Amino acid sequence: MATSLPPTLDAELATLLGADGWLTGEQMRRAHGEDDSRMSALPDAVAVPRDRAQVAAIVRACRAHRVPIVARGAGTGTTGAAVPFAGGVVVSFARMDRIVEIRPGDRCVVVEPGVLNGDLQQALQPHGLFWPPDPTSFERCTIGGNLACNAGGPRAVKYGASRDNVLGLVAVTGTGETIRCGGPWTKDATGYDLTHLLVGSEGTLALIVEATLKLAPRPRAQAGLRAFYRDAAGAAAAVARLMAQPQVPAMLEFMDGSAIALLRRHGIDVPDAGAMLLVEADGDDDTLPAALQALADAADGEDLLSLDVATDGSARDRLWAARRALSPALRTIAPGKINEDVVVPVSRIPGLVAGVEALAAEFVLPIVVFGHAGNGNLHVNILYHPDDDAETARAQAALPRLFELVLALGGTLSGEHGIGVAKRDWMDRAFDAPTLAAMRAVKAAFDPDGILNPGKVLPL
Amino acid sequence: MATSLPPTLDAELATLLGADGWLTGEQMRRAHGEDDSRMSALPDAVAVPRDRAQVAAIVRACRAHRVPIVARGAGTGTTGAAVPFAGGVVVSFARMDRIVEIRPGDRCVVVEPGVLNGDLQQALQPHGLFWPPDPTSFERCTIGGNLACNAGGPRAVKYGASRDNVLGLVAVTGTGETIRCGGPWTKDATGYDLTHLLVGSEGTLALIVEATLKLAPRPRAQAGLRAFYRDAAGAAAAVARLMAQPQVPAMLEFMDGSAIALLRRHGIDVPDAGAMLLVEADGDDDTLPAALQALADAADGEDLLSLDVATDGSARDRLWAARRALSPALRTIAPGKINEDVVVPVSRIPGLVAGVEALAAEFVLPIVVFGHAGNGNLHVNILYHPDDDAETARAQAALPRLFELVLALGGTLSGEHGIGVAKRDWMDRAFDAPTLAAMRAVKAAFDPDGILNPGKVLPL
Repeated sequence: MATSLPPTLDAELATLLGADGWLTGEQMRRAHGEDDSRMSALPDAVAVPRDRAQVAAIVRACRAHRVPIVARGAGTGTTGAAVPFAGGVVVSFARMDRIVEIRPGDRCVVVEPGVLNGDLQQALQPHGLFWPPDPTSFERCTIGGNLACNAGGPRAVKYGASRDNVLGLVAVTGTGETIRCGGPWTKDATGYDLTHLLVGSEGTLALIVEATLKLAPRPRAQAGLRAFYRDAAGAAAAVARLMAQPQVPAMLEFMDGSAIALLRRHGIDVPDAGAMLLVEADGDDDTLPAALQALADAADGEDLLSLDVATDGSARDRLWAARRALSPALRTIAPGKINEDVVVPVSRIPGLVAGVEALAAEFVLPIVVFGHAGNGNLHVNILYHPDDDAETARAQAALPRLFELVLALGGTLSGEHGIGVAKRDWMDRAFDAPTLAAMRAVKAAFDPDGILNPGKVLPL
Repeated sequence: MATSLPPTLDAELATLLGADGWLTGEQMRRAHGEDDSRMSALPDAVAVPRDRAQVAAIVRACRAHRVPIVARGAGTGTTGAAVPFAGGVVVSFARMDRIVEIRPGDRCVVVEPGVLNGDLQQALQPHGLFWPPDPTSFERCTIGGNLACNAGGPRAVKYGASRDNVLGLVAVTGTGETIRCGGPWTKDATGYDLTHLLVGSEGTLALIVEATLKLAPRPRAQAGLRAFYRDAAGAAAAVARLMAQPQVPAMLEFMDGSAIALLRRHGIDVPDAGAMLLVEADGDDDTLPAALQALADAADGEDLLSLDVATDGSARDRLWAARRALSPALRTIAPGKINEDVVVPVSRIPGLVAGVEALAAEFVLPIVVFGHAGNGNLHVNILYHPDDDAETARAQAALPRLFELVLALGGTLSGEHGIGVAKRDWMDRAFDAPTLAAMRAVKAAFDPDGILNPGKVLPL
């Protein structure tokens, strides 16, 4: 049960947190040392604070000994941001999971970071409200993790990602001080915007202990359409048309020709096409028909092959079946998958798809592109057999070429997964030296001793 | 023509910028030393750079001599943020006024900071796009100034303020380094969000030399309604209902009973009521009727006295006439006006109005409240005669009590005007010491020598 922490720190935090709040057994440490990146490392101990005062005390104690601290939500991140490679203390927010106050009149909610995204949505439903970020892992992931990584999802095209849907934060910096920024209001010109700076900083600047989240009115109904295009250029032109008209789609998802071909080989009933768009409108029975018509008009163009409209739930389910079938189909052709969530300007989507096709040919690997077209945030999946060393090597070699392609197209590394360690060593390609120096200066301002999640986000 | 700058700095910048870019005559210095706060101070010189390389050179040169730099747009700010109280060099962006690239396919535009808000809107019109921030001064104010102060306007309730509508920045920090953050995309989880941090920092962290702005599709039509309520509580309840349903209003403006009474005394045809709301929907001919109906339904309630709907342009003009008549009417009762743009949670609007009524009685001064109800961002206007010393003193004494009231209601100091020097000394009431310390650390990270707009935003 012994840890390699300084004994005085171990004793201090054991006393502070009690037996159920200070976990040093190997099994618990192991369980808190991995995330969905499939990377893992063993922390020296796991702290499970009950409140913000305990969080501040943990940070002050660790700071005194220069011991690293890694904040942890549910461990659903894909970049290794929550993996304690430098050892130290993992701070789990599993017991800080209260919905503090739902304020329907102010269209916001105050939560502790350990609340699950899905639980929050359920609690908001009776009020006719929802919190927009909708990552695939919403049933398991925490609000704190969503904020740390600026999580998104399909709805971001209309409602924004996590950063766009937070109004205020209480957070403990690397000096153990508790700061309060923003609040239950939607317009703020009072001092520096620390709120949005902390979102997406992956636990390297401060530990979020409370968040005031911006809510949106839950739409009463949805309707959708599915459009197939000759090629990616035709679909991208449609995306630009869809985003240039006033009826903002509630979702706007893209699938490239490789993904469509894969679905067809798996017996899914979709036409032979170079690209597909799934487009949704939300609203109510009065507004949906006009909204759907506006989206259908914008989706139409000379490269359109076919268009299906779904106005009721079961028809919608059928349209989305192809999208849902994709992940299982991907697994059947190769158990290994590198899934990168790159971003390019919407107008460069055809360039991305063409570039990825060239990489697939060069590295002799299936690579499919799909994702959130309205934000230019596309998931590029490089498929390979992990037990085939040559294939694995080719997949690893294709990845830097993908990042090069994205940066050459004027894009950036991540739209919703974050950097962690997975993309950290590409940060000095995405940003020039003065900008990275400014980020490092910000890091030093919040965490002068570098104890918060060391080795993440910024290149070493 | 002599300045009090170090002669070597004067010579260096005169050579760098040429006679039309380095202004040391008193008339030009005076013209660049004031803003709409009616405060003024004389800078030692005015620099008018042509490009970002000149901006960086100016900052490096001034830094070598520890000479203050104050960035200046059009001088329409109301808080003294652009007034060079510490002397030094005012940097005017009047010659960096190019619209660099309109990218309709990416729904963004790249601009230099000196572009006027109104000129940008005109340039975007043929593309069916607009930039949402719409301050009253839009015809005269610059994009750089809008970003520096996080300017808003009535449209912010649906489209957000300046911070919500910027995607990327190029900026020169206090060390003379040029940083680049964000870009032509709407979703970003790549490193620290410096973009939104710089917005609203009033030239104290960096000088913005280029901005990539998020655009919105221009709605094809607007329609509105005007509702009168028994009291502010009834109107605030309607605001909460309006914000809780899915049809987000494009504007949602409030006027209190004092303002309505003032209008009636000036012969404006409005009913005797305790509060008024102006609500707008935007969309097209297909969607507007349903949108307007949804807003009218939400506006209705037991405290509603009357409701007028305007579906065409001239009827809309009539509804807005009362709002437009307000400012001239205010001027007739008192030439002096302290206009504060405080923010409270929407649910606290009745508390703000009641508290302001109490202040008006206590200080024997007319005080009217109106503004952007959907954001809880209200303009509190304290009216007085500047040549009446006793009245002026009462107005000055009422102001801190207003800020106390706002903070006690859980609100904040400014929603769209910023802090400058006008509210600077209230910052340590709005934020606790650790949060202010974090802001100071951020300031030191970007501007280690404190040369950028010294004495603004942060309390001394």
